[in-house]
Formats: sequence, structure tokens, C-alpha cells
Amino acid sequence: MTLAPVLDRIDADLPQALERLKDLLRIPSISTDPAFKADCDRTADWLVADLASMGFEASKRPTPGHPMVVAKYKGPEGAPHLLFYGHYDVQPVDPLELWDNDPFDPQIEDLGDKKVIRGRGTADDKGQLMTFVEAFRAWIAEHGSLPLSVTVFLEGEEESGSPSLIPFLQENADELKADLAVICDTGLYDGRVPSITTMLRGLLGEELTIKAASRDLHSGSYGGAAINPIRVLADIIDSLHDDQGRITIEGFYDDVPELPEELRQQWQGLGFDHSRFLGDVGLSRPAGEQDRTPLEMIWSRPTCEVNGIWGGYTGAGFKTVLPAEAHAKISFRLVGQQDPLKLREAFRAHVRARLPEDVEVEFHGHGNSPASVMTITDPAFEKSLQALTEEWQIPAAYTGAGGSIPIAGYFKTYLGMDAMLIGFGRDDDQIHSPNEKYDLESFHKGTRSWARILDKLATK
Amino acid sequence: MTLAPVLDRIDADLPQALERLKDLLRIPSISTDPAFKADCDRTADWLVADLASMGFEASKRPTPGHPMVVAKYKGPEGAPHLLFYGHYDVQPVDPLELWDNDPFDPQIEDLGDKKVIRGRGTADDKGQLMTFVEAFRAWIAEHGSLPLSVTVFLEGEEESGSPSLIPFLQENADELKADLAVICDTGLYDGRVPSITTMLRGLLGEELTIKAASRDLHSGSYGGAAINPIRVLADIIDSLHDDQGRITIEGFYDDVPELPEELRQQWQGLGFDHSRFLGDVGLSRPAGEQDRTPLEMIWSRPTCEVNGIWGGYTGAGFKTVLPAEAHAKISFRLVGQQDPLKLREAFRAHVRARLPEDVEVEFHGHGNSPASVMTITDPAFEKSLQALTEEWQIPAAYTGAGGSIPIAGYFKTYLGMDAMLIGFGRDDDQIHSPNEKYDLESFHKGTRSWARILDKLATK
Repeated sequence: MTLAPVLDRIDADLPQALERLKDLLRIPSISTDPAFKADCDRTADWLVADLASMGFEASKRPTPGHPMVVAKYKGPEGAPHLLFYGHYDVQPVDPLELWDNDPFDPQIEDLGDKKVIRGRGTADDKGQLMTFVEAFRAWIAEHGSLPLSVTVFLEGEEESGSPSLIPFLQENADELKADLAVICDTGLYDGRVPSITTMLRGLLGEELTIKAASRDLHSGSYGGAAINPIRVLADIIDSLHDDQGRITIEGFYDDVPELPEELRQQWQGLGFDHSRFLGDVGLSRPAGEQDRTPLEMIWSRPTCEVNGIWGGYTGAGFKTVLPAEAHAKISFRLVGQQDPLKLREAFRAHVRARLPEDVEVEFHGHGNSPASVMTITDPAFEKSLQALTEEWQIPAAYTGAGGSIPIAGYFKTYLGMDAMLIGFGRDDDQIHSPNEKYDLESFHKGTRSWARILDKLATK
Repeated sequence: MTLAPVLDRIDADLPQALERLKDLLRIPSISTDPAFKADCDRTADWLVADLASMGFEASKRPTPGHPMVVAKYKGPEGAPHLLFYGHYDVQPVDPLELWDNDPFDPQIEDLGDKKVIRGRGTADDKGQLMTFVEAFRAWIAEHGSLPLSVTVFLEGEEESGSPSLIPFLQENADELKADLAVICDTGLYDGRVPSITTMLRGLLGEELTIKAASRDLHSGSYGGAAINPIRVLADIIDSLHDDQGRITIEGFYDDVPELPEELRQQWQGLGFDHSRFLGDVGLSRPAGEQDRTPLEMIWSRPTCEVNGIWGGYTGAGFKTVLPAEAHAKISFRLVGQQDPLKLREAFRAHVRARLPEDVEVEFHGHGNSPASVMTITDPAFEKSLQALTEEWQIPAAYTGAGGSIPIAGYFKTYLGMDAMLIGFGRDDDQIHSPNEKYDLESFHKGTRSWARILDKLATK
């Protein structure tokens, strides 16, 4: 089974592959919002049908939340067995008014120097997961089979904290276990260097409600005498960082390792353009710990961010209400050996210690995962670096990533598998934001990259 | 023209008066929300028709916003001329889910020890303005005429900053000018003592938008390096008070007078129950300046309150967004000679001085009015105190009020008229909150109070 005709077939089939991707993108699989439950289900059906059509033994597997898709393909006897992971759910689309087009009516746009496909989920993660699906299709169409055994495992709750994931992995460990997990949900370094991500931050999500008076009050009748929960919340948020950008929660940095000198030097060699990184989004000054570079801030340092805040009257005009409650969604990116559950308690203790008399707090946890540091001793990593270098004609690199892909750690913990993270997103893809896009080059070369990686890994 | 049959007629007509009030309450005249523009217009029509039906020369008067209602009744030659003011617009109803019933389907509820009418606008201010309208109706029905001349002036923008009010007063000064203005938008002291409010706080409303990155960012890709506008906003809000509850804006207290010793003693004589005042709404500790009593805090001290805050993702579930913008609505209650426009600039300077690099602020002003201190030399004040004492069988009092009724100051400034503020609301009316109500006793005795006041003031 040779590689060249597979690559040719991918090139020839690109228009059809894009039509398939658009079909998938049209289904609004927003997992965090219960209003889109049926759409998530339909998305899983679409993927099961597509994988079954090329010979996978594919099924939609129910969970208490959105279903999983599991599909298996038996390659030649003795060939390695890879598990490919992606997620078919997408982020919400608000603020909808900032989208130039319907987020669920994907369009190809010619930007002059390149073409992109625009719409929710194009880069995160439907466009990415379809790169390996299309690579499988081309291999099977050309050679009647894949060169190795593949299990496809697609999740529908990645954007909403993956509540069903760990139980599913535990209950189906034997079926899902493979030689290596391959995860396609990351990006090119600097928008051009193909890379394998070997460090990922963990994530801890918290929602808090600050409660003061038993009901909303009139700020004329009570203002000045009754405590305002928005002020209490602002005080708490302000207390989470010191004036050097360090997080003030007790013990927060206990399990944060210093970056090894070797890795620091390797990262310096990447020539990360700090001013362009921030300049691209209208900023100039790094806002984190003042003694760290932005690359360290996003790849190797923990954070505390307020992702949402609301309370009182937020509509048009003015209302002189003194609200009974104020709310915030706060998340922490974790690194090294930081324990999410220990830090959840430390955060809650920090908040409780700052509550004035008469004020109560309610917490709601939104998922948690530790950071991941990959072991790259498996030769599959070096072989994949080679395949990426050949496809992109740029030396591929090992990199870190600021985001959290907890599944990598779960594969290790629950299935005993290492994970290799390869993806083709770019920093300007505007994932989680209005006008999300995916470069057609990413989709096309991404598909070709997987075809090459399958070829390289087919022999143990 | 004697009073007794007028009072008897009010008693007999109470069921019909309540039906009329319910009709008025059913129109959702939310002035701050443009979606209810036609409803505001319909409310003005309803009032014009009702006043015309009893012999007033009534008209709906267009403004760039919601219309004014002006209605005139000529009493006996030489009798005094009073201008009665109320407002027919109401507050928004959110959070709607906290209402036990449709806010615009008013119901009479028997609470055992008393009856109330519940719905948006019952106490603020439709129920109150209908007390004087019903008193007029009873006088005219009984005696064929009012005992003095009356102009009714009803506004439809009181809950949205009264943008059309000053131009309207200026353009119609000759028509509106009377011997004394009477404003019905205040309450009983301590829910039982009839009172004339002689001190009112002013109001300054501000909305600010903190802008950081040029678009919403992914907190994984940018968290730790890109500045978060919610944190900047929290820092600004936190900076507005010191740990003793004093407002920190430069020069804020320059024009705040100390309470005259005489007034302080009079207020102490009212026996204000500080712990019950806060205890009624689930609080125990006064949150304002720590060296003031709650009664001072709400009647004689300025405040700064956050009335609303929003930014980032506020829907169900979680979204790891690092938002581009954060917003707040902030208002100040003003006292003494505090100049709202001077303080607006001082507030904006305070905010601008706290903006980190890369961050911008946009301000939007929401109306402003200075505090009012009434001159009570006109004998109408003492006569009205007597009338109130006779109706309620409790000695009536001069009091302060924490709210802002800018119209009182405007009548003085633009029409050269003093204003007398009398109303029958109670602290537990939940105005501006879900489940607003008005006691039937307030409505009934309020109507009777006005009948008595008309009688007392009919002779100069």
C-alpha cells in the first residue's frame, strides 16, 4: 500500500470533502445549551453514518448527556492500533450580532492570500476531526483498507465540561484501549510550524453567586445602608490577583514547577513574536505575572480568569435597583502538578474569607482537569514529526499550549495510553468567538498530514 | 361645600375605584424599554379620557419621548391653584421568574391582617396618582365642582431619567405654573406615620464600558497574557469606596453638609427601628459609612451604587471566553449642594486614572438631578399636616427620603413653585422589585387624605 496515490486522491476529492464538512457544520451542536440537545444527537448520527459508509463498525453510544461516537476499523494483522479523538460539539455563538453571517451556514471565503471556511465549529473541532476522517476515506478508497487498525472516538460534551467522559472511559476501557491515542484539537505553532503539543494546561471552572438582601431593593430607599452584592463580588475578583499579576489564593503556586532550562531554551528558539501575538488583538502590554514572558504566561503558568459576570439591571436604559444577587463564572488554567480539587477548595475558602456579614455565597463547580505533560519516548512521536515536516516543508516542533484538553490526561489515567496531540488550527481562527474560521490550507494539508502519519506508523 | 359627604362617597365608591386602578395597571407602561412605547402612549390616553370624563380640560401632549398628560379644572374664583404631579410609567419587570403572578394582571390579595393590590406600578406610581384622581372624582360628583383650581400634570418618563421633562416645563411654564406643586410619589414614615417629605436626594446615573482586546478571546490561548476587562472593571468598582464605606472620588464630599443638630434630634424622635429596617430584607449590618446611622445613610448621606454589571458569557453552562468588553451601570444619590455635573466629571476622571495600558472606557450619562430641600413656610404645609393627622389619627411628620424625585427641584427652578411631597407608600411595597404591591389602606385613606387636604387648602 503506497502513500502517493492516497495523497493524489485527497487533492482530487477536496471539493467533495468540503461539502461534507459544510453538511456537518450546519448542525448547531452547542452542547452547553439544553435547547440544542437534539442537534447534538443529529450530529452524532451524521458521523456514525459517514464512518459506517467507509466500512467502520460505527455506533452512537448513549450517555446521561450527549452521545459518544465509537467506530472501529480492523487493519492488517499485527499492525499498530491507534485511537483518534475529536469532539463534534461546538461553543455557543453569542454575541450573535457580531457575526457577519449565520454561524451555522458555513461559507468559503477568499481572503486574497488564502481561503478559509467560516462558521461555528470550523476550527474547533469539526474541521479538525474531519481531517483524519477524510484521510481514512482516501486510504480506504485507494487501497481497500487502512494500513493499521483505527478506533475513532468522538465526544459531544467537550465544550461543556465533559461530564459523561470519565464514566464512559471507565465502562468501555477494554473496547477503547489502543497502542496510542491521537488527538486532533490543537494548532500549528505561529500559524505555520506543524507541531506536536506536549504540554497542556489543566482547567478548573467555578460559578459563584453572591447573595445579600432577601430581595432586590430600591437604591433610593436602601442605597447606602444595604450591602450591594456587586460590590462584594468586585472586591473578591479584585482580591484574586496582586499588583504584580500573581494569583493570591493561598497555596496556589505550591505545585507549579519552574520551566526546565532546556525547555525554556527550546521555546526561545521558536522566535515567538510577543508583540505581534498581542498586537493582533489590539493589545500591547502582557497582563500576567510581570516577571514572565507572554509565551511562558500562556504555556507554563497558571491563570485565573473571570469568564462572565452579571447582576442587577443589564437591559436598555437605567434602573436604580440594588440587586439581591451577583454572579460570576471564573476559571483557572492549571500547570504542573496543581490539583484541581485542592485548588477548588482553596478558591472557595479565599472567597468565604472575604464575605462581609449578611452575605452568603453559593458555588457551582464546572469541571476540572489537571495539566498534562506528554511522555514522548514512543517512536510514533518522532515518526509523526517527520511526516509533518515532509508535508509542510517546515521542521516540525514540540510545543506547549495554553488551552486545556483534559482528554489527554484521562487517556493516561483511565486507559493507560499515551496521547499525541496534532492539529492544524491557527491563532486567528477566532475559536469560541464570533466569525470562527478554519484555513482551507489547514483542512487540506491536515488531511494529507494524517495520510502520511498513517503511512509512517503502519509499521511498528 | 362640605367634606363629610365627599368622604362617604369615597368609601362607597372604593370597589369601582379599584376596578379603574386595575384597568390602568394592566397597561405595561415600561418607559425605559422602547418595546413598550405604544403602551406608554395608551396609558396617557387612558388618563386623558378619565380626567376628561369628570370635567377636566385634558390633553395628551407629545414630547420627543413619551407623552405628558396635562389636565386643568377651574375652581371657585379666588381659590388657590394647585398642580398635582404623578408619573404613569413603571419600572421593568425582570427578573420575571421571581413574580408570583403576571405583573400586569393586578390582583387583590388578602394577607390576613390587610389587603393589598399586587402588580407592577401599584405603588410606583399608578396607585398613588389615582389617590388624588379619585379624590377629585368624589368632590366633583358630590358638589359639582372642586373647591379650588387644579392642574394635573402626569409624566411618562420618570423611571427612565425624564429626558423630556425640563424642555416641557420650560416651553409650558405659563400654563403649568400654580400656587403650589403637590407631588404624590413618596411614602408613609415607618409604614404608619403620614408624612410630608422635605428632603430628597439627587441622582446621577452613569453607564461605562471597559474595552480591552479588539475581540473576544479564548482564555486558553490568551489567558494570563491578555488583559481581562472584567478584572479592570472589578478593580474600578472596588476603588470607589474605602474600607469605612466612604466614597473615594476626589472632592465627592465637598458640598455635603452635616445634618443640622435640630433635624438630627427631630429624626431621633421618630424612633426609626434600624434593625427592623434591615431585618425586613434579610440584613443585619448597615453597609454604608461606619460612623453614620442607617437613617442618616439613606436620608442625608450621598451614595454610590452599582445597579447592574455584565460581561463575558452569562448563559447556562460554561464558556472559557476572555471577553473584549465589560459593562456597569452605576448611580450616585446626592445630597446638599452636590453638583451632579461636577461629580460626573470627577467620577469619569477617577475611572480614567485607573485604566491600565491597552484599556479604554466609554461613558454614557443617564440623567442627573441635584438634591432638594423644601422650604416649608407656606401655610399649606401645616394645613396638610393637620389633614393627614385627622385622617390617619396619628400625628403627621416632616421627614427625609432616600430616593430622588428631581421634579421637586425642577418645579422650583423652572416654574418658581415650591413643592409639597405627600404619599402613602410603604417600605415593603417592593417598588422596582418583583411582586410590587400597594396596601388597600394606602389607596383608600390616601384618597380620603387628598379630599381632606383639598378642603383645608380651599381657603387661602
